[in-house]
Amino acid sequence: MPPMRDIHDTIRAIRWESDELRLLDQRLLPTEEKYLVYHDAPAVAQAIRDMVVRGAPAIGITAAYGVVLSAMQHIKADPEHWRTKLEQDLAILAGSRPTAVNLFWALERMKTCLARQATDPVAALLAEAKAIHHEDIVANHTMGELGASLIGANSSVLTHCNTGSLATGGFGTALGVIRTAYAEGKLTQVFADETRPWLQGARLTAWELMQDNIPVKLIGEGAAASLMRLEKPAWVIVGSDRIAANGDVANKIGTYSLAVLARQHGVKFMVVAPTSTVDMDIPNGNAIPIEYRTESELLQLGGKPIAPQGAHAWNPVFDVTPADLIDAIVTEQGIVEAPNTASMLAMMKKA
Amino acid sequence: MPPMRDIHDTIRAIRWESDELRLLDQRLLPTEEKYLVYHDAPAVAQAIRDMVVRGAPAIGITAAYGVVLSAMQHIKADPEHWRTKLEQDLAILAGSRPTAVNLFWALERMKTCLARQATDPVAALLAEAKAIHHEDIVANHTMGELGASLIGANSSVLTHCNTGSLATGGFGTALGVIRTAYAEGKLTQVFADETRPWLQGARLTAWELMQDNIPVKLIGEGAAASLMRLEKPAWVIVGSDRIAANGDVANKIGTYSLAVLARQHGVKFMVVAPTSTVDMDIPNGNAIPIEYRTESELLQLGGKPIAPQGAHAWNPVFDVTPADLIDAIVTEQGIVEAPNTASMLAMMKKA
Repeated sequence: MPPMRDIHDTIRAIRWESDELRLLDQRLLPTEEKYLVYHDAPAVAQAIRDMVVRGAPAIGITAAYGVVLSAMQHIKADPEHWRTKLEQDLAILAGSRPTAVNLFWALERMKTCLARQATDPVAALLAEAKAIHHEDIVANHTMGELGASLIGANSSVLTHCNTGSLATGGFGTALGVIRTAYAEGKLTQVFADETRPWLQGARLTAWELMQDNIPVKLIGEGAAASLMRLEKPAWVIVGSDRIAANGDVANKIGTYSLAVLARQHGVKFMVVAPTSTVDMDIPNGNAIPIEYRTESELLQLGGKPIAPQGAHAWNPVFDVTPADLIDAIVTEQGIVEAPNTASMLAMMKKA
Repeated sequence: MPPMRDIHDTIRAIRWESDELRLLDQRLLPTEEKYLVYHDAPAVAQAIRDMVVRGAPAIGITAAYGVVLSAMQHIKADPEHWRTKLEQDLAILAGSRPTAVNLFWALERMKTCLARQATDPVAALLAEAKAIHHEDIVANHTMGELGASLIGANSSVLTHCNTGSLATGGFGTALGVIRTAYAEGKLTQVFADETRPWLQGARLTAWELMQDNIPVKLIGEGAAASLMRLEKPAWVIVGSDRIAANGDVANKIGTYSLAVLARQHGVKFMVVAPTSTVDMDIPNGNAIPIEYRTESELLQLGGKPIAPQGAHAWNPVFDVTPADLIDAIVTEQGIVEAPNTASMLAMMKKA
């Protein structure tokens, strides 16, 4: 087994330094590693919308730091009426993307923290944002161990999109499980969907796994069914952007397809996400808002057209996998096998 | 309904003119329409290997013209010993790509024709190549009508890869059915998989359908399951590179995945291919040779690297769909519903 980097020494896509937020521009990876610097919440919201940062937990953490920037900026500029400006910024951050519930969860935590402060809230808000960030990393490591416990020796696995350090506070959800299982010597091969249209699998997941010397092969998404038939992966392991109360899972477009194919081929299907991704207010997946993005994401690549001028595309960027196709949901509070409303509720009561 | 071009006035990707073979370079579409000119069989074999021309029927037709070029060249250069050179060229053409059986079928026809000629065979070989080309176009139109007869009013359909004029002698197999059904006023919308890694859907199918004013929307392959759930297409319609005696179908990677998803969603699945694609010598799909191509096809997109340097990929370019997932196989000899060895044999006896 080639050497793996220390399990705690992973990429940090989100950094708070010198009262500034720094985001690794994930649109440029793997070609270029460049951090962009943010001083106000509307710019942070735009960065989320434009996918400088992506991944449900990472979006939540980024938005939390956005609230800190808003408080710092407006208290300094207008010590009397900053609250109105801060509330506007909270709305702007909440409007950046619709599907990942971690965004709204993090903003709620920041609002609750704010409501508790009688005077200048900046120090308390910063502490809360850092807590959200830190807790996410800790949760990732816990989920890594729980998820890896489900994986047997000499397994290969298939993953989708990017769920690693880049998508989280650090370490990763599905990729945290893969990192841990590999460190435990259980994995022979990771297969990664390239994940159109943004190619998070090719650009980000392959990049992260190669840095850890974990063997990874990319596949086109159309090849997943053949892979399951010919290479017999033990598990498909994915993250999530929102999990409904009954265990239905919204995640990157393509996930639902993998779940149907996995069940058909006797491949197990694992979803790995922190409890901040679970939305107990939504009864099932039909109620999860699914983001549609611009057609040009499918019609161009790197600014270069790949379809005829004037062509059209259908571009939902998430889908919903029904709970009955999922063998295990892994959160930092435990493993829910064959999830349903009762078992999800029991797990969430521990949170 | 916007005007459609005359049904017989389609693109011709393969042209025989002035004793030369001209192939539309499909790697450059839709950006550039450029014909490359060929005078010898090894160059034709290389063009097939490099995907200047692709699509099972088009490969067969191209190889047939390659045999004509070989005969012309070697009879002129060495009127005594040209047969040995011609046999070498036949082997080179047969070695260009492994999966599409139309290639071997066309070469067999050319060999049979050659064996019948006592003297200079060029005129007879050219007539035979032109007959193969012409018969394919006629078969496409017959299949178009047969396939369209299965489609109800106000239907949307999903197709994969490119099966149009570019992939055949002209008009198309699956796309011929779509063209005919649209001309009959039955289709409201065509969805086309972009079809990684070569993007035949985005580059070629969208281009062909837009020229005919047929409404087409591209999707990423991961979106097919969601499309079936949300947009409820009536049919998935695909071509084939080789059909085994029992009705198992080899086609572009991603087809098998669509067939599993279609069955799961109550969407019907149609395969459209001429009898030159049916290989009655192969009992089932397990015996069909599946081509694996270079990893770089997946690691780049439009010549631009999209994965980290040194990344790996798994790149089978065809898959096998078992007959029991197929609702109808349409050839120019008729429709085989729920195909099996007996019904395929009965259809082929008409051929």
